[in-house]
Amino acid sequence: MASSDQSNDHLVHSPDSQHPANLICELCRKFYTLGWVTGTGGGTSIRHNDHLFIAPSGVQKELMQPTDMFVMDFHSREYLRRPPNLKPSACTPLFYAAFSRRGAGCCIHTHSQWAVLVTLLVEREFGSSACFEIERIEQIKGIPKGRGDDGKVGGMLGYFERLRVPIIENTAREEDLTESLEAAMEKYPDTFAVLVRRHGIYVWGDNVQRAKTQCESLDYIFQLAVEMKKLGLPWT
Amino acid sequence: MASSDQSNDHLVHSPDSQHPANLICELCRKFYTLGWVTGTGGGTSIRHNDHLFIAPSGVQKELMQPTDMFVMDFHSREYLRRPPNLKPSACTPLFYAAFSRRGAGCCIHTHSQWAVLVTLLVEREFGSSACFEIERIEQIKGIPKGRGDDGKVGGMLGYFERLRVPIIENTAREEDLTESLEAAMEKYPDTFAVLVRRHGIYVWGDNVQRAKTQCESLDYIFQLAVEMKKLGLPWT
Amino acid sequence: MASSDQSNDHLVHSPDSQHPANLICELCRKFYTLGWVTGTGGGTSIRHNDHLFIAPSGVQKELMQPTDMFVMDFHSREYLRRPPNLKPSACTPLFYAAFSRRGAGCCIHTHSQWAVLVTLLVEREFGSSACFEIERIEQIKGIPKGRGDDGKVGGMLGYFERLRVPIIENTAREEDLTESLEAAMEKYPDTFAVLVRRHGIYVWGDNVQRAKTQCESLDYIFQLAVEMKKLGLPWT
Amino acid sequence: MASSDQSNDHLVHSPDSQHPANLICELCRKFYTLGWVTGTGGGTSIRHNDHLFIAPSGVQKELMQPTDMFVMDFHSREYLRRPPNLKPSACTPLFYAAFSRRGAGCCIHTHSQWAVLVTLLVEREFGSSACFEIERIEQIKGIPKGRGDDGKVGGMLGYFERLRVPIIENTAREEDLTESLEAAMEKYPDTFAVLVRRHGIYVWGDNVQRAKTQCESLDYIFQLAVEMKKLGLPWT
Repeated sequence: MASSDQSNDHLVHSPDSQHPANLICELCRKFYTLGWVTGTGGGTSIRHNDHLFIAPSGVQKELMQPTDMFVMDFHSREYLRRPPNLKPSACTPLFYAAFSRRGAGCCIHTHSQWAVLVTLLVEREFGSSACFEIERIEQIKGIPKGRGDDGKVGGMLGYFERLRVPIIENTAREEDLTESLEAAMEKYPDTFAVLVRRHGIYVWGDNVQRAKTQCESLDYIFQLAVEMKKLGLPWT
Repeated sequence: MASSDQSNDHLVHSPDSQHPANLICELCRKFYTLGWVTGTGGGTSIRHNDHLFIAPSGVQKELMQPTDMFVMDFHSREYLRRPPNLKPSACTPLFYAAFSRRGAGCCIHTHSQWAVLVTLLVEREFGSSACFEIERIEQIKGIPKGRGDDGKVGGMLGYFERLRVPIIENTAREEDLTESLEAAMEKYPDTFAVLVRRHGIYVWGDNVQRAKTQCESLDYIFQLAVEMKKLGLPWT
Repeated sequence: MASSDQSNDHLVHSPDSQHPANLICELCRKFYTLGWVTGTGGGTSIRHNDHLFIAPSGVQKELMQPTDMFVMDFHSREYLRRPPNLKPSACTPLFYAAFSRRGAGCCIHTHSQWAVLVTLLVEREFGSSACFEIERIEQIKGIPKGRGDDGKVGGMLGYFERLRVPIIENTAREEDLTESLEAAMEKYPDTFAVLVRRHGIYVWGDNVQRAKTQCESLDYIFQLAVEMKKLGLPWT
Repeated sequence: MASSDQSNDHLVHSPDSQHPANLICELCRKFYTLGWVTGTGGGTSIRHNDHLFIAPSGVQKELMQPTDMFVMDFHSREYLRRPPNLKPSACTPLFYAAFSRRGAGCCIHTHSQWAVLVTLLVEREFGSSACFEIERIEQIKGIPKGRGDDGKVGGMLGYFERLRVPIIENTAREEDLTESLEAAMEKYPDTFAVLVRRHGIYVWGDNVQRAKTQCESLDYIFQLAVEMKKLGLPWT
């Protein structure tokens, strides 16, 4: 790799707390306390104009610094910045799918245990090709309804509508999830999230705030759904 | 909206940590860590003399700033301050019912999962028109007994008394809950809280401290009640 | 009450973080995050020479300030300091029993849900006069074995010994627990804690560190015991 | 003990946050919030060249200071520094086994309740000589596969591989675990962790980051495994 790839430190240095390199660090500290990214699991990426900022692989997510960020050019998919001694995230092609196919501004990947348990419960009850489905829970109003023909988000799901989150099967290597993630995006054009069986979830949104709050709403719903199963309460 | 509506920044600027605009932000940061207002859910409102301070709709509740607050005149119900680019909370008419019908000084709305689960358990066991009822739990002494003829709070519930929290059915739009919330206030004149099925809870009190500590006591009781059900222990 | 009772502010003002008035505030902030003292529940008291420092009744425990502390003389049982507008804790005679009958230096009262659930499970399985009993859990080595004839703590419980924590029945008024708490101290001379059915626990120790760490160890064991019941695993 | 043993304060004084004496304090504060080291339970040790830094016995782990650390010489196994009034950790010979037999740079001992519950569930279902085994959970990719003939870590476990963590029986005294811990290291040359029945876990790694993140990944898996049992979902 050319040394120029490694020297673009100006891309990640900013006094602005809202700069993507700073925001990813702050988000991951918060996600760590929620149990979403412990043990170096999970990841986060933000698109800012034509730059994709991506947390590295295999690091303690609550201790990341802006200088740990990878920066990729959206069009060429080449790294504008690669921190020496760090490995790019295996989630990169999955994040890229959210940016390129859905126009996302931020994509979050968690290993939330509630998400994992929901994928196991769905498989046992409805089979391996089923979605997670729930309805009549107020918090589903925190999940967007999909986009209209103009590409804009068409409002949030209603209380009486059904939330569906597709589930894809896990693979040995994270990058090998890309094809089935993209297929799920095709099959469920309205979804803003894809669950990965026995693994976790990818959630994206138009910007950081939407991706984060949708991820929170989904995690709330998954936790509630697991507790409902323990108490024998049906999801639909 | 008149531009004057948006310029009353002096209403929310104060160095006093006990100023309502500052307190709402501090409370919501705390409520976020308790899981009550994640995913932009929930809300909080404080009445200070004739001004109602209300957290906006659809924002990250743990990141709110005093300048994000809406301020409404109690008598005219008109906004004295509307932050541009923010939407008023759909909870506003429900908060207003607590201020106008109960003389509350603060009203808190959470999406606590324990509250939601309790509403589901009550429906399954006692039907859709039933209250949540529990007795002989020390923490119910943290819930007021109701008001005397003089309008003053008449002490706390006793250990051997039964706590009853009415439950209303959820509606598609939050503001459409107002009628049934008001009806529950009529039917249960002693209650300081109303559960909303599959949604959460509204809790009010004479001032911020009482609303917050009553909300904590109720949430403690709901969590305990759910754990009791998992262990096969009866509520009454 | 004489005004002199209220003016002894020097008793609670100290720059030393280990001063009892400062320590109680710090402990209660920590206990709040553990869910032990939410909704104004629970309390803490420290004996320092002949002064008993006691958190007040009915306040938000995580927000207490040193100036909120009551100070009582150990011998006369009269208040040396009573903050105006605050009420003395109803736990005071129970704390006093630990100081006078057991030579405790600190006594902690929590409303921990794990403690409450354990008292309910014991009642259902073993009847209302039974102790909580568990054995062969490493953490019981964090609980003292009792005192020798010299009044000194005789080491910690061993892994193969059985932990017994007596349970007393709750009463309408907290102060009415005193008699049965004292009776439990008589009947179980080795215990450093008494559970209160449907209410919580009192834990004491020779000093702040011991009371706090014993309280943590007991709460760990109660939580584990509840989870064991959910999984069908026996306690003894 | 010679006074020189107690005076080597320079061994634990450093402005560098990555110095072992500082790191152990920071790690234990974090582990306390995770419930791994409450009630003075658990411990942590770091090897730095020929110095072993070890947290003391019986202290509040979240309040430790660098000056509380014991320092032992790796070769002579003699203390280079013994803080007066503190007791050496009973875990010391177990930490030593990880340093000497596995070339570890850090060893962590927790009393995690998830670890304890897993040992009880394995015993009931598979008998007292069985390992904990789980497969097809993404987070097992956070656990190393073992070492090659060159002594280097040979990559992480794959998603389709099975994680096995040996379990040893608890003993009355912590130091008496040493023999069976060493035997488990012999029998399971690839393991980076040993569970102790009804007690907790020892986890080690080449350095602090690896030991900590492996400990997090294992604890995540144990929690998930317990929740799976509650929901009737199989581990393998």
